Amino acid sequence: MSASSTQRLTAAALDSWKQVLGRIDQILTSSSDEDFEREVAPGRNRVRYLVGHLAAVHDRMFALLGVGERLHPELDAEFLENPDSHAAGSHSAAQLRAIWAEVNAKLTAALEQLTPEQWLDKHTAVSDEDFKKEPHRHRLSVLLSRTNHASFHQGQLRLTR
Amino acid sequence: MSASSTQRLTAAALDSWKQVLGRIDQILTSSSDEDFEREVAPGRNRVRYLVGHLAAVHDRMFALLGVGERLHPELDAEFLENPDSHAAGSHSAAQLRAIWAEVNAKLTAALEQLTPEQWLDKHTAVSDEDFKKEPHRHRLSVLLSRTNHASFHQGQLRLTR
Repeated sequence: MSASSTQRLTAAALDSWKQVLGRIDQILTSSSDEDFEREVAPGRNRVRYLVGHLAAVHDRMFALLGVGERLHPELDAEFLENPDSHAAGSHSAAQLRAIWAEVNAKLTAALEQLTPEQWLDKHTAVSDEDFKKEPHRHRLSVLLSRTNHASFHQGQLRLTR
Repeated sequence: MSASSTQRLTAAALDSWKQVLGRIDQILTSSSDEDFEREVAPGRNRVRYLVGHLAAVHDRMFALLGVGERLHPELDAEFLENPDSHAAGSHSAAQLRAIWAEVNAKLTAALEQLTPEQWLDKHTAVSDEDFKKEPHRHRLSVLLSRTNHASFHQGQLRLTR
């Protein structure tokens, strides 16, 4: 098959990523700052936590995929290493909206520069030796997995609308 | 790039699909038949509805991707064309579990036979003419979209665990 076939395949994966981000954007656009304090189900994560959580996970993709330095390492303690405290958070809804938009815009722009060869090359959390045994641990598998992760939480966010 | 590169790309998409189905399987295995009557959030869809809904959507992929005849057209009225009635359903939890497993097993087996060329060929809901203008409307984009759809509802089902 031609180079254009591999390009069409990786472009489809990137389109799918952008589509899910766009749907979450829509949910957040139609949410008020007060809605950020709502729980997706009784006693479960608040909207604010899921936005911070997704931003932290996406921010870590810069290093994992070798496309740059992360922007907001300060998110991890509150949104990744600990569950939702259900107490006042350290970020306002406006701050979370801005971080969410910034991380995804810069990350997606960086991902759009990758060639099909780079998508099929190993991500940074796997050694050369392990990659020989597990050649599916490439950048594209990370993108597909993070797209599913974002969809998973989009389904929960949707319950607040 | 070589044919093996395109094969690795489509294999990654199929792995991602199977991974999401496996996670839903895990949730359903750990759910009792009584859990099938639970709502994912107050007043929202019941587990039984989401299982029937996902089975119906996946069942329609046989024809959409041109890989066979659908198995359970009787699902559409209850699980696709109408919202959850929150009344007694026409299928028992055991029947829904069996349909879910059957549809996904047969569909995935059929999808595993497709070549990279076939993945990049148009799906059956697009005309030859439209495909020339919109070459991204191929089988792979359907698979990625349905994988995201399953993840979306997996996130909701997860709230009942």
